[in-house]
Amino acid sequence: MFSLTVRDHMMIAHSFNGEIFGPAQKLHGATYVVDVAFEREQLDPDNLVVDIGLASSALKDVLAEFNMQNLDEIEAFEGRNTTTEFMAGVVFGRMAGAIRDGRLGESGKEISSLKVTLSESHIAWASYHAAI
Amino acid sequence: MFSLTVRDHMMIAHSFNGEIFGPAQKLHGATYVVDVAFEREQLDPDNLVVDIGLASSALKDVLAEFNMQNLDEIEAFEGRNTTTEFMAGVVFGRMAGAIRDGRLGESGKEISSLKVTLSESHIAWASYHAAI
Amino acid sequence: MFSLTVRDHMMIAHSFNGEIFGPAQKLHGATYVVDVAFEREQLDPDNLVVDIGLASSALKDVLAEFNMQNLDEIEAFEGRNTTTEFMAGVVFGRMAGAIRDGRLGESGKEISSLKVTLSESHIAWASYHAAI
Amino acid sequence: MFSLTVRDHMMIAHSFNGEIFGPAQKLHGATYVVDVAFEREQLDPDNLVVDIGLASSALKDVLAEFNMQNLDEIEAFEGRNTTTEFMAGVVFGRMAGAIRDGRLGESGKEISSLKVTLSESHIAWASYHAAI
Amino acid sequence: MFSLTVRDHMMIAHSFNGEIFGPAQKLHGATYVVDVAFEREQLDPDNLVVDIGLASSALKDVLAEFNMQNLDEIEAFEGRNTTTEFMAGVVFGRMAGAIRDGRLGESGKEISSLKVTLSESHIAWASYHAAI
Amino acid sequence: MFSLTVRDHMMIAHSFNGEIFGPAQKLHGATYVVDVAFEREQLDPDNLVVDIGLASSALKDVLAEFNMQNLDEIEAFEGRNTTTEFMAGVVFGRMAGAIRDGRLGESGKEISSLKVTLSESHIAWASYHAAI
Repeated sequence: MFSLTVRDHMMIAHSFNGEIFGPAQKLHGATYVVDVAFEREQLDPDNLVVDIGLASSALKDVLAEFNMQNLDEIEAFEGRNTTTEFMAGVVFGRMAGAIRDGRLGESGKEISSLKVTLSESHIAWASYHAAI
Repeated sequence: MFSLTVRDHMMIAHSFNGEIFGPAQKLHGATYVVDVAFEREQLDPDNLVVDIGLASSALKDVLAEFNMQNLDEIEAFEGRNTTTEFMAGVVFGRMAGAIRDGRLGESGKEISSLKVTLSESHIAWASYHAAI
Repeated sequence: MFSLTVRDHMMIAHSFNGEIFGPAQKLHGATYVVDVAFEREQLDPDNLVVDIGLASSALKDVLAEFNMQNLDEIEAFEGRNTTTEFMAGVVFGRMAGAIRDGRLGESGKEISSLKVTLSESHIAWASYHAAI
Repeated sequence: MFSLTVRDHMMIAHSFNGEIFGPAQKLHGATYVVDVAFEREQLDPDNLVVDIGLASSALKDVLAEFNMQNLDEIEAFEGRNTTTEFMAGVVFGRMAGAIRDGRLGESGKEISSLKVTLSESHIAWASYHAAI
Repeated sequence: MFSLTVRDHMMIAHSFNGEIFGPAQKLHGATYVVDVAFEREQLDPDNLVVDIGLASSALKDVLAEFNMQNLDEIEAFEGRNTTTEFMAGVVFGRMAGAIRDGRLGESGKEISSLKVTLSESHIAWASYHAAI
Repeated sequence: MFSLTVRDHMMIAHSFNGEIFGPAQKLHGATYVVDVAFEREQLDPDNLVVDIGLASSALKDVLAEFNMQNLDEIEAFEGRNTTTEFMAGVVFGRMAGAIRDGRLGESGKEISSLKVTLSESHIAWASYHAAI
């Protein structure tokens, strides 16, 4: 399996519901350093997994929906805890959609799986890894 | 697959038996930066892989058995070479036990696999990755 | 000059005032990975810059004032932009106070300067470095 | 699965063919930080995945073929784009050959798979991961 | 002293003249991860060292002159070895010029010194640090 | 000021004397990732701070005295606590000696200062920085 990974980041505010979250029930925030790994069995005729320019700009577009936002105010997340692992799944879904919509080019449609990792600090990170 | 990873470290002394180890046959030491990735198919109702507070404290407890020790003097390791890859397996076993014992909470029992990585320097690290 | 640096982090929400901040005028957040370097000309009789245990717990105490908070609601910051560079200065002030108060031990009083660095992402960080 | 990873690097020049590459069609270059992960189900009797000394020197030998070279002038790559993902596959092939040839020792022959990762910058890297 | 640092990168080809360079006399290349630290004694009224948006885009503009180029073909470098330390000085000069030209805003003119660091690999980097 | 930094590492065992060290009074160990920054005002005629090959091999020679050793058994350290900050000073002294002895070449004699940093983990490191 070949993979290509690109990195970007977003800076968000949010709060959590549930006693298990302790002090994180209050409004706080996070920088998420976001790595998206694109995976496919064979390279395309240019020897690429995906056009790195298209991949980077698709990721920037996806993160723009959340960057500099209070996630508590995003309607789609109402009643959901926007944990690091949940947001990894959300970014996965948005990137998979970008691929299906052809925003990573015709060749990008050969991508078979994605791994999205969000690092919230130097000592904790979360991923979602699945076929698309 | 979702995963959540937490990082901690331990500082140990040890020596190895066997000519293949060359100068590492003498008593020396290492800092192991330890990453434990908890993996499961679905998030729990709080949108968590595992309670990060419980995960971090369980890891600290596991490492306390070895941190600031000479591994050559630990009875369970008698006659064994405590290589980085072997110690990754040992930490895996201790963390899997903590999960079975419920120390990561009821929800933690849904964790299906673990990947434990020990970094011994900026140019070498070892992992053990398996179902639990 | 000898130095010893310890690392911890805090996760905060905040917003900025002023057109120069663009989208960061809205409520958002950040993880700050915080490095505090303690500096002195000579080591103490134990060959230490400072007791690393005391240094780490003093830093954790200082960060507890801000961690998991919305900085916009902290009275002392009213009317101030809590930029990364400003917060580096704030942590510097708190750590210098901890040293003066003897919370880093008698030997800690020989520390002559501090450098505090807050990393807000993989591509941006800020410092405050001064004598105490 | 156990794994052991070693890191080294190479510094190369190259150019790409195809409009998709934009400015990278011109002669430019890259530092590739190269991580090779050796994987096997069980440790050997010394508790090793592979002799780390042999693994590191085999990797250095493999990279010596490309380090400080213009990849455009290497005959085997004629007509091929030497992208990061392609070069990950090339290093994989050379390391798999080294294992088959016994250059990682008898015990090294138990290695079942390799993952080779080439990092081209702090925001992009590529891998090839397969059985050998 | 306050500082703010921003990171970007460039990918270049070059060769060196002089026996001391050994195999690096041949055409090869490098990824330079470039950190520019802006330094000043006091923050501006917005609590900034410099507008991070202007700083990042000025750095991108400076690197665009060299990124995806063969430095051997740049007239200004004729007869010069474009070593990592030399290029740190070159980027310093270009960034100092951007500040003097007002491209970092009026407030940016209060910056008193810059430190430019170019990392060529995980085991080597070079800096130029001076008043402007 | 120009600087060039090279990185290597050593793996050692040791123990400390004094109640302040708590559990570190027992025999344990550490990996020290060692960064040596060479500093000088002007580049040499080849545009170098120092020959990176000579610098790296001089550092490897210096670390060979300690790597894979129990520092408690090194006569020169008898009665001394081999803390991270103390060892940074020791490596500084050995590297300064190497420069004076001409082991970094004639040009290396223009180096005016060194900064030696030993990282003991992902959350703690120590330096010694001085003129030579």
